[in-house]
Amino acid sequence: MKFQEKLDKIVKKNNSLLCVGLDSDFEKIPPRFKKKKQPLFEFNKNIIDQTHDLVCAYKPNSAFYEALGLNGILALKFTCHYLQKNYPQIPIILDAKRGDIGSTNEAYAKFIFDFLGVDAVTIHPYLGMEANLPFLNRKDKGIIILCRTSNPGAGELQDLSASIHNITDDRRKSRNKESLYIHIAKKVVSEWNINGNCLLVVGATYPKELAEIRKLAGDMTFLVPGVGTQGGDVGKTVKAGLNSKKAGMIINSSRSIIFTDNPRSEAVKLREEINKYRLT
Amino acid sequence: MKFQEKLDKIVKKNNSLLCVGLDSDFEKIPPRFKKKKQPLFEFNKNIIDQTHDLVCAYKPNSAFYEALGLNGILALKFTCHYLQKNYPQIPIILDAKRGDIGSTNEAYAKFIFDFLGVDAVTIHPYLGMEANLPFLNRKDKGIIILCRTSNPGAGELQDLSASIHNITDDRRKSRNKESLYIHIAKKVVSEWNINGNCLLVVGATYPKELAEIRKLAGDMTFLVPGVGTQGGDVGKTVKAGLNSKKAGMIINSSRSIIFTDNPRSEAVKLREEINKYRLT
Repeated sequence: MKFQEKLDKIVKKNNSLLCVGLDSDFEKIPPRFKKKKQPLFEFNKNIIDQTHDLVCAYKPNSAFYEALGLNGILALKFTCHYLQKNYPQIPIILDAKRGDIGSTNEAYAKFIFDFLGVDAVTIHPYLGMEANLPFLNRKDKGIIILCRTSNPGAGELQDLSASIHNITDDRRKSRNKESLYIHIAKKVVSEWNINGNCLLVVGATYPKELAEIRKLAGDMTFLVPGVGTQGGDVGKTVKAGLNSKKAGMIINSSRSIIFTDNPRSEAVKLREEINKYRLT
Repeated sequence: MKFQEKLDKIVKKNNSLLCVGLDSDFEKIPPRFKKKKQPLFEFNKNIIDQTHDLVCAYKPNSAFYEALGLNGILALKFTCHYLQKNYPQIPIILDAKRGDIGSTNEAYAKFIFDFLGVDAVTIHPYLGMEANLPFLNRKDKGIIILCRTSNPGAGELQDLSASIHNITDDRRKSRNKESLYIHIAKKVVSEWNINGNCLLVVGATYPKELAEIRKLAGDMTFLVPGVGTQGGDVGKTVKAGLNSKKAGMIINSSRSIIFTDNPRSEAVKLREEINKYRLT
């Protein structure tokens, strides 16, 4: 089944655009899990069992598993396997932000889609479409390209005014001047999305930019990090990012759900808040 | 010891700017290694033992280890440990091309510098300096920022004309128009390099761009992939990229050394060819 189809089904079934980010930092998980043989996996299992009827996706961030070395990678594999076995209808997004030359991306795609078997991955655009074909050619997988990220310093490069060089008569003419993130969004929509499997990362911390990207991206789905700990406003985010079907967003929250005393009630609250703005 | 100091010593001792890329793709290693319990590690050990007196660095690319799942990560760890124990004077560069928000990059830095204990890492610039501080703040480690990559499609985004937006009186003035990769090179040289530990990735497949970046980067060291299988010309590369000390380049070759019948003789040949252009 194609990623978008799987996503659409669970959005409908769970009436949710909420993605829970499994950023399971060992330093931050409760002591009772740290004593277990597989602390990150046991922690994730507990979160998943509490929230599976509230989410449209889970998004483990590869970094927090790699940070523990081998045992961390094992926890990531166990987590994916647990989801695939018990909740096969919920898509798994590996937030890995990979991006290398083509022959190397083939190897990354193997780890992500064959070894872990997840449904989607985040990638960097910097090396261009040609290098990213090993991801883009995985027709059934969601390929989520960084466009406007949620971090405070995102604008340093992403806000640069970008245009295509035309060197004529020793003079540089530029046309189509626009921000780099807009240029990338347009490229993904019109050129990279040959298999209809592209999504964009657009941070909730920048609702103005989110609205601007929505205008040019049709109904393409966005992965939206940055609500919760990073401070993105839920109302502004939902209003800015919805597509024509009152969907088209995977709104991620990690720390402000998973590291609280009651993850289920935080997930309920955020799903309801999103739906309040989404469905009225 | 700081990365650059370690690099300078081995460049002198081995009279070499050659880096051997340990892109140890399981599909491509000889059958005699495939039978072993740790195929990638045994393959690497053989390459390392044959070439340790000829190189200035080894560069495993994370993707080829991740592609094998847990056993691959174990092979990467064993390879790093083998080098650290037997050839501690040779720097290890993990080609990981990471880049996430700050709190996540902290976790990546843990895997790369604490679990694996390597000397340097490659990173993506797209999220900006603020997000990359967890790497940049590792003063003793080499932080190698993607600038102009070696792949055929590198120019799609990297050649865009980039300038800083200035919105004045509803009018956008742009100044300092230059290619995105030039803009990034200048930023790294003048702003990101607060700890004197930055390097740039500049592909050998683009000698004109390499020369242009050398002009603005002082004596900063470049990691230069793209000779060998990717087709970069050694003479043009060396002439374009050397700094004022006849060094400042880590010239990487992977496939055209490690997947040949005699890796040592290929490494000798390439080191000599580099030195021919470097020392005359």
